[in-house]
Amino acid sequence: MNDFKNNPLYKIMHPKNIAFWGASSNSMSMGSIQLASLLMLGFEGNVYPIHPRDKEIKGLKAYSRISDVPEKVDLAILVIPTAIVAQVLNDCGEAGVKRAIVVSAGFSEKEGKEGKELQKRIVEIADSYGIKFLGPNCIGVVNSYLKLNTTFNPYDAAPGFIGMASQSGSFITQMFGHLSKFGLGFSQALSLGNEAMIDLSDCLEYLAQCPKTKVIALYIEGIRRGRHFVEIAKKVSKIKPIVSYYIGGSEAGRRAGQSHTGAMAGPDRLYDGVFRQCGIIRAHSIEELFDFCYVLGTQPLPQGNRLAILTHSGGPGAAAADSAERAGLELAELSPATLQALAPLLPYTASVKNPVDLTFAKNLNDYMATLPRILLKDQQIDSLFLYCLMPQQRVMLGVLGTGQGLEQAQQIVSEYVKGQSAIAANLSLESGKPAVGGTFGDRSELFVRELQDRGMTVLPSPERGVAGLGALYRYSKWRKTFS
Amino acid sequence: MNDFKNNPLYKIMHPKNIAFWGASSNSMSMGSIQLASLLMLGFEGNVYPIHPRDKEIKGLKAYSRISDVPEKVDLAILVIPTAIVAQVLNDCGEAGVKRAIVVSAGFSEKEGKEGKELQKRIVEIADSYGIKFLGPNCIGVVNSYLKLNTTFNPYDAAPGFIGMASQSGSFITQMFGHLSKFGLGFSQALSLGNEAMIDLSDCLEYLAQCPKTKVIALYIEGIRRGRHFVEIAKKVSKIKPIVSYYIGGSEAGRRAGQSHTGAMAGPDRLYDGVFRQCGIIRAHSIEELFDFCYVLGTQPLPQGNRLAILTHSGGPGAAAADSAERAGLELAELSPATLQALAPLLPYTASVKNPVDLTFAKNLNDYMATLPRILLKDQQIDSLFLYCLMPQQRVMLGVLGTGQGLEQAQQIVSEYVKGQSAIAANLSLESGKPAVGGTFGDRSELFVRELQDRGMTVLPSPERGVAGLGALYRYSKWRKTFS
Repeated sequence: MNDFKNNPLYKIMHPKNIAFWGASSNSMSMGSIQLASLLMLGFEGNVYPIHPRDKEIKGLKAYSRISDVPEKVDLAILVIPTAIVAQVLNDCGEAGVKRAIVVSAGFSEKEGKEGKELQKRIVEIADSYGIKFLGPNCIGVVNSYLKLNTTFNPYDAAPGFIGMASQSGSFITQMFGHLSKFGLGFSQALSLGNEAMIDLSDCLEYLAQCPKTKVIALYIEGIRRGRHFVEIAKKVSKIKPIVSYYIGGSEAGRRAGQSHTGAMAGPDRLYDGVFRQCGIIRAHSIEELFDFCYVLGTQPLPQGNRLAILTHSGGPGAAAADSAERAGLELAELSPATLQALAPLLPYTASVKNPVDLTFAKNLNDYMATLPRILLKDQQIDSLFLYCLMPQQRVMLGVLGTGQGLEQAQQIVSEYVKGQSAIAANLSLESGKPAVGGTFGDRSELFVRELQDRGMTVLPSPERGVAGLGALYRYSKWRKTFS
Repeated sequence: MNDFKNNPLYKIMHPKNIAFWGASSNSMSMGSIQLASLLMLGFEGNVYPIHPRDKEIKGLKAYSRISDVPEKVDLAILVIPTAIVAQVLNDCGEAGVKRAIVVSAGFSEKEGKEGKELQKRIVEIADSYGIKFLGPNCIGVVNSYLKLNTTFNPYDAAPGFIGMASQSGSFITQMFGHLSKFGLGFSQALSLGNEAMIDLSDCLEYLAQCPKTKVIALYIEGIRRGRHFVEIAKKVSKIKPIVSYYIGGSEAGRRAGQSHTGAMAGPDRLYDGVFRQCGIIRAHSIEELFDFCYVLGTQPLPQGNRLAILTHSGGPGAAAADSAERAGLELAELSPATLQALAPLLPYTASVKNPVDLTFAKNLNDYMATLPRILLKDQQIDSLFLYCLMPQQRVMLGVLGTGQGLEQAQQIVSEYVKGQSAIAANLSLESGKPAVGGTFGDRSELFVRELQDRGMTVLPSPERGVAGLGALYRYSKWRKTFS
């Protein structure tokens, strides 16, 4: 814990107060919007806008110079023209500010010498005052637990367990909504920009120490200190899973990345090798990055790769089975005891193989409760995929047909859904084995909301659920080599 | 059109009236729920429940025999125990009913001889009366334009342009909600079950003739009449795109499929070859199946594979670029005229390469209007991917900052979003080139709803948008060989 508080990033992510450059009476400027977003989330420390002329900005007293601010400042945020960044860093140094986020762009990511020289100069200034800054050309950070969001988009997700470091800045802000789709959120998120002083390896080290972070997500366009990164990542992945999305592997992705933050990318296969030797789980799309984080951050590690699939719709069950192979999992052979326990619970139309396809339930409570528990007890099963279709509408039609009024029927169905969700959400905790759900529904449905909020990991399709379990298995193999 | 009306499936999909077996006073039985669902969507023809004892079911007069029904019946739907299916089909034949849907299971999909013999017998009975039936072991059909839904789940999507034939039954019903996520819907959907009399090739022929169907989705576990299927598919794909998801390729998927409908599956590579020689676009997941249908059913065919990417966030732009290669597309080289036209519109932080990364807009209207139009005019560009992040929240923060009240600010932002969406939705119509959007938002956002409802194809991530454009390009190559 002491390591954590002594980490150079700690004060950037946990400032007691902030001096903010670039907000003004022009409320549509990027700086004004970033300040508005910071205030909106409810950051509780003092915020000091610095502006040469304006006396009040967003209801806060503004100061013309950092030296006028009445207390020692923890963090400086700079959203100002490239040309004056050096001067402001100088002022910060004189005022004893030790941490900064430089949002301003126009440095080493630009073609030509000028930007690179400018970047070198601001690093020299920072060094001379003992300042550590994030950026330049980054969008800032989120510490959801501290209500700190320095990016330009309001943070509307919950405080969560995913710690992210990203070489694309605005990318982080767009994931706020994406994570909300699962009821998830960031614990901490850092946009790296040009990594002039703080790079991916530093963030990895920091997120490993962060107690709120259960899984680390990396968005990588190119790694700067390769050997150092490998060394750090190897250590971190022994205690926390790391999931990486690398886009520099294709020629096209590489070119896009270069013009973006100026990082050097290498061939895809090289990165594949690097990730493998570090125990980093690789994702191949943005969706996969967070799907994997969701599973790796919530599920216990499996003992092996034998998967059971439970469904009451043939298609999604077959799709899950089909994707198991691609995910590196094999379909478990059900033990005789399991077959015997299942038999009386299944209708004659059901398939008592793996996938177990219920077709329809003889007893509505079996599907989310009795059946998965039987499967998870089987010694020949290491993990479970559960297709989560709540026949809610069907049950509703049935209940309405008994002559219940609409309101009463809704009440009955809602109680039923909540009860079923509560049981299903405990499956992995009870069994110590991973149990992941997949659905084509979303959080507009009570069932999905209830399951996710009660702690069940539910992904938006059978294939994505199974792929997540595959990633979990790969990580379990890595961990086993050290246990 | 005459072909369409003469197709044996026409009357199954367009019945004037329906006789329904299996609904009863037990409102939780599958038959009762299917009847409730049929009535709920508002099917306008007469519906005659047939039941040995009950006199009224769901507010409809029930008949004890089909021979008592006062008019000639177009379609019989059977949700009854396996053992009495033969007798009821016999009764139907006597009463002059020529079309049926047999939902009942327990036929050739079961292990052992008995089910197979039973299935043979009901086919013989049907043949002797000139009856054509869908199933057995299927869940029925949807004709959204006729408000016909014989499945057990309420149809809550819009009438749409995707025609589907599926070897998994309940699968169709679960896609209702999935399609709603994009504002899409089925034109017609058929669940095939054991295909005793009507198989995949028959449905393909029917959907090719259906004027409401712009693209055909197939969910395949195994093809029965291989040569016939190839012949039909080759013809159909010259006039309408076919997208197929085949799950029998892996050992696990094959086993799952076999126990499900008893279809024979073949090795993955074999099916790959079959699809290729028929011009069928293959999808590798359920999500991809409908992503591809969405793009192929809405977008004009591209002249080549040169893709332009427009983004204002580096990460999603790079992800799109990275996935282009995998989708068989190459990044277009922007022409000098385009570069010249773009230059004054981009801020100094922007990247004027492909992907065009705006970083931020000098003029808020440029991103969805001026910039994509410039790119689509370029002769070196065949298709456009547009990352659709509406900086709605950011604009909102800005507008609020000007001192507007919340309601007024919401009004301003909403007008702005609508205006931008209207322009962007016309891009492919104006240019004759495909323009597909990708976003991490969903229809809970006004921007996404407006874009999709006005006709822009917007998928839930950059990678999925680009993959859709890749599928469109593959289909365009197939079509070119015949033009």
